[in-house]
Amino acid sequence: MEQLCFGVDIGGTAVKVGLFTTEGRLVEKWDFATRKTKEGKEILKDVADFIKEKIQILKLDMGSILGIGIGLPGPVKDNGEVLELPNMGLGHFNIEKEMQELIGLKVKAANDANIAALGEQWQGSGKGYHNMVLITLGTGVGGGVILKDAILAGSNGAGGEIGHMLVNYKEKDRCGCGKRGCLEQYASATGIVRMAKRSLSSNNKASALQNIDNISAKIVFDLAKEGDALAQDIVSEACRYLGIACANIAQVIDPEAFIIGGGVSKAGEVLTDQIKEYYEINVMDALKNKDFKLAVLGNDAGIYGGARLILASNG
Amino acid sequence: MEQLCFGVDIGGTAVKVGLFTTEGRLVEKWDFATRKTKEGKEILKDVADFIKEKIQILKLDMGSILGIGIGLPGPVKDNGEVLELPNMGLGHFNIEKEMQELIGLKVKAANDANIAALGEQWQGSGKGYHNMVLITLGTGVGGGVILKDAILAGSNGAGGEIGHMLVNYKEKDRCGCGKRGCLEQYASATGIVRMAKRSLSSNNKASALQNIDNISAKIVFDLAKEGDALAQDIVSEACRYLGIACANIAQVIDPEAFIIGGGVSKAGEVLTDQIKEYYEINVMDALKNKDFKLAVLGNDAGIYGGARLILASNG
Repeated sequence: MEQLCFGVDIGGTAVKVGLFTTEGRLVEKWDFATRKTKEGKEILKDVADFIKEKIQILKLDMGSILGIGIGLPGPVKDNGEVLELPNMGLGHFNIEKEMQELIGLKVKAANDANIAALGEQWQGSGKGYHNMVLITLGTGVGGGVILKDAILAGSNGAGGEIGHMLVNYKEKDRCGCGKRGCLEQYASATGIVRMAKRSLSSNNKASALQNIDNISAKIVFDLAKEGDALAQDIVSEACRYLGIACANIAQVIDPEAFIIGGGVSKAGEVLTDQIKEYYEINVMDALKNKDFKLAVLGNDAGIYGGARLILASNG
Repeated sequence: MEQLCFGVDIGGTAVKVGLFTTEGRLVEKWDFATRKTKEGKEILKDVADFIKEKIQILKLDMGSILGIGIGLPGPVKDNGEVLELPNMGLGHFNIEKEMQELIGLKVKAANDANIAALGEQWQGSGKGYHNMVLITLGTGVGGGVILKDAILAGSNGAGGEIGHMLVNYKEKDRCGCGKRGCLEQYASATGIVRMAKRSLSSNNKASALQNIDNISAKIVFDLAKEGDALAQDIVSEACRYLGIACANIAQVIDPEAFIIGGGVSKAGEVLTDQIKEYYEINVMDALKNKDFKLAVLGNDAGIYGGARLILASNG
């Protein structure tokens, strides 16, 4: 009887679920809308019911299911403790214990960005590395650190929150987190648009960006590739801050590789090449020549990581 | 028969050796000058001979010695591999294997700053923390990261090299490492003196520092405590960069505490208080309220850490 497991990625708008073999083959995947209620814990019941239904429909033997690995959009401690998920109306609770009671299967959980890193390390661009960092450039900047094949969750589950590393001491605008000068303010899709608008209002350089109403990060990267100097400056600035952040991360944890994912990473190797360039300038000799790669699992990284989390916990 | 172990700290000028009980009591300690020869490996033979002699003099049973833990001034991988120790004329070799052959006891090794962190975590200010960072402010700035009670060595043994995190993008002078704007350029004893001299040449603020020929970090801190405004500015700048570095470290690894050691830390709580102040401003909410403490083991941190390293490797 083949052994299987589930990887679950609970997001603010959708829940993704994948069924995996122990070798990391994605057998089938699904998603459903995250239910928004005052009592956020109903989401746990939804996930349990959904998986139970799939087990029934697919006629799976409960004994063949090794467990469920879950990613959550907030800090999760190594023991499954969630301190708070304000977006989902959830306070302090232990997600592993509560889900286990609901579904009767072993459950492991972690932060969604950390679990995406574990997914890339298991079956994506991080394959073969024991120590690596995933940086996701989306609406925000997320991060996950893998050390010795395991998630670095940190003492309160807030490990890998590299989007809020301070990279610019002169910034006047506030980040969503309340601080000023966070990496996220320059390297996220939102941050790139913010920088573009700022450049346009303070700069006389001729640029095709001046004629565009709805600037997006993609447009900035496309124009940069076409040779637009202002767009190139914005891309350089984003990559410079990313390179500096990677250098400072390396000075602390000395990983083998940095994997760049998220919507912005669709820009391709122009991104990793430039980040690496700024990285090399800002890191000490013993830490030079790390690998910089693009992520490959896309939105599935989280469910892969969930599967890996539960498999690793089974030894 | 009581079980014992040795902790060894090999430095550029002296080798420190400590004999410890398994509970962490320092039974006796010694030191001897580091032999400077073209063939750096003679230092390994010196250490082996020294320990063999002590075992003989103290009439210790070889069977009661669990092993030797060694700290080295350079990157050491988890498996004992040393890539290079240029200061000591040593190239690529495995110190654990070579020492084991020389002495017939189990040997574990790590970088000296990392091993000092392990020492403080075992029997110093870090007692009780599972995840902590030691920052040593001496001639340079050293660092060591402990995660889940173990040293974070990183993929090439260069984990915890936080003295070379980039903290000032505007710096024009080069750090000893070749980069510009490293933490070490502001927070080491040398860095504080450098900042003092720079302030004196560019600043008209009246300061007692103007009348001192041989400015030292201690003098700067003493004058700051006495209310000298220029000295206070210099201390603030050092603490600001330290606070920012700690914040960026926390964003990556989420430790429980930061322990500040090294000669400069003799300045006392004025240092930890100010670092914490700048830390809190620059870190996201989920990471606030970490502990900041002064190290207590001084120069013995390395031998304590060596002992702990070998004891932990025995399970």
